[in-house]
Amino acid sequence: MAKYVFGVDIGGTTVKMGLFDVEGNVSDKWEIPTRTENGGVHILPDIAAAIQAKMSEKGIGKADVAGVGVGAPGPVDGDGIIHKAVNLGWGEMDLKKELTALLDGIHVEGGNDANVAALGEMWKGGGQGHKDLVAVTLGTGVGGGIIINGRIMTGATGSGGEIGHIHVEDHETEACGCGNYGCLEEYASATGITRLARRKLQASDKDSILRQGELSAKAVFDAVKAGDALAVEIAEQFGEYLGKGLAVIAGVVNPEIFVIGGGVSKAGEVLFDYIRPSFDRTVFHGCRDTKFALATLGNDAGIYGAAKMVLE
Amino acid sequence: MAKYVFGVDIGGTTVKMGLFDVEGNVSDKWEIPTRTENGGVHILPDIAAAIQAKMSEKGIGKADVAGVGVGAPGPVDGDGIIHKAVNLGWGEMDLKKELTALLDGIHVEGGNDANVAALGEMWKGGGQGHKDLVAVTLGTGVGGGIIINGRIMTGATGSGGEIGHIHVEDHETEACGCGNYGCLEEYASATGITRLARRKLQASDKDSILRQGELSAKAVFDAVKAGDALAVEIAEQFGEYLGKGLAVIAGVVNPEIFVIGGGVSKAGEVLFDYIRPSFDRTVFHGCRDTKFALATLGNDAGIYGAAKMVLE
Repeated sequence: MAKYVFGVDIGGTTVKMGLFDVEGNVSDKWEIPTRTENGGVHILPDIAAAIQAKMSEKGIGKADVAGVGVGAPGPVDGDGIIHKAVNLGWGEMDLKKELTALLDGIHVEGGNDANVAALGEMWKGGGQGHKDLVAVTLGTGVGGGIIINGRIMTGATGSGGEIGHIHVEDHETEACGCGNYGCLEEYASATGITRLARRKLQASDKDSILRQGELSAKAVFDAVKAGDALAVEIAEQFGEYLGKGLAVIAGVVNPEIFVIGGGVSKAGEVLFDYIRPSFDRTVFHGCRDTKFALATLGNDAGIYGAAKMVLE
Repeated sequence: MAKYVFGVDIGGTTVKMGLFDVEGNVSDKWEIPTRTENGGVHILPDIAAAIQAKMSEKGIGKADVAGVGVGAPGPVDGDGIIHKAVNLGWGEMDLKKELTALLDGIHVEGGNDANVAALGEMWKGGGQGHKDLVAVTLGTGVGGGIIINGRIMTGATGSGGEIGHIHVEDHETEACGCGNYGCLEEYASATGITRLARRKLQASDKDSILRQGELSAKAVFDAVKAGDALAVEIAEQFGEYLGKGLAVIAGVVNPEIFVIGGGVSKAGEVLFDYIRPSFDRTVFHGCRDTKFALATLGNDAGIYGAAKMVLE
């Protein structure tokens, strides 16, 4: 009976790695650099070498390893094939097959990083105890991961859960990074909140502590907590968009819980005060009891979820 | 090896029934009345009696039957328990357990009627050859069914795929049947299209063949085909809402195909001419190749899907 599983989260700069037991307890965490040169040819060999070194160091034999789970930044289909990971220099890459070969036959599972992080939050994070879950990552962009009945919903082409790019505003004049206009990401990401704040400060004559110092999502929610009226208006705009977007997602997927993570979520439960009004007003009544929770695993969600993929 | 499967679709007025082989060929179709009196206590016994009579008539033994699938109008969870079917008079009903008992142990599966119809369209209808599919029913209301990897997505409380009630308009003043304002159903159902037409006729001085005769979704699309300019404007409004709604669903679920059915779909492929522009404009680029097809099974989709549930 295998006792160990490795969780690997490939980012554009570093690869995060974790050694877990099959119950999900992590006994070691470390990072290696992501070498993206030459179309990213070194990435998987570097990962394989790091895993083999760790196995030697700990005296872990091949038979002791249930497998290696890998999250990667790009669309990954149900067969573990990643279709274009621009940040890694990869075109199409059969993660499972390539890494299994490098690891002398050890079982490998692969998934999209946002989806894998969602699985991690379900297993050991803010979504513990649930099996139908939508994870929402409010960072530089807005990412998402959808878990149905305990399993990642990849979608037909690996774009399942790309909730940052659902259309929520018809009258936007600035394009989203994806090229469309009015995507959720333009209002609910850290960048989006900063943009809302900039617009609000320009359009208003009101006094605000946001007029000093550098504008950021953190500054906005700090000002909200300090009772700044203009910051509250910005938070209301953010919450109006995000609450309506999540209400639509609830009507489609009907999860038990939304787990909110990413840098913006560091503001804490105050976020829910701004998300819930528009959510409650627009959501289908059968989904009105959907719970909201904060993500708890931070940057480790990916290695947890990657490990969990192997154990499903 | 069992050779037969029964598909049952319980409606508010009649119960549709079909006898299938395991390949999905239907050899008999019939209906019985739905007796909703006394909290619907007769419905399942009537169905059981009809199945047993058919088995006697055809000389089919219990061992020849793989099972009985049932679609019912209400939220059905993953365990086959229906939570309130108002049209049948039912409160909570354990469809699987009750009907299995009445059928002397024959295997029973249960699902929500819209979800079951989606499965039918995947198996033998407009979605054949696909396993990630969203069925959209444009009838009196707007219903939906989501199939992920060949299986119905029920959602946490049986509200998965309730796409008629996703919020698509902030400035609606008339309430939807669900109590909210601005649901997709208010613009994309037969009733909704009629309402859009009435508003347009009132707001415009333009001549239109819609000013004669009775207003209906069918009249609108007949007029579109006859080149009526005002009808085209109405179809554009309908398509703008539905296309944007489906684009959001695509970004969340990433299906291979949308299968459009219900009374409105009798207008034919002209619908897609009005849905695609706003879909293409607002959908996430990874979902831009999502296909559109018309449903082909009509009112039989339910019995096909019910039968398929047993064979999964």
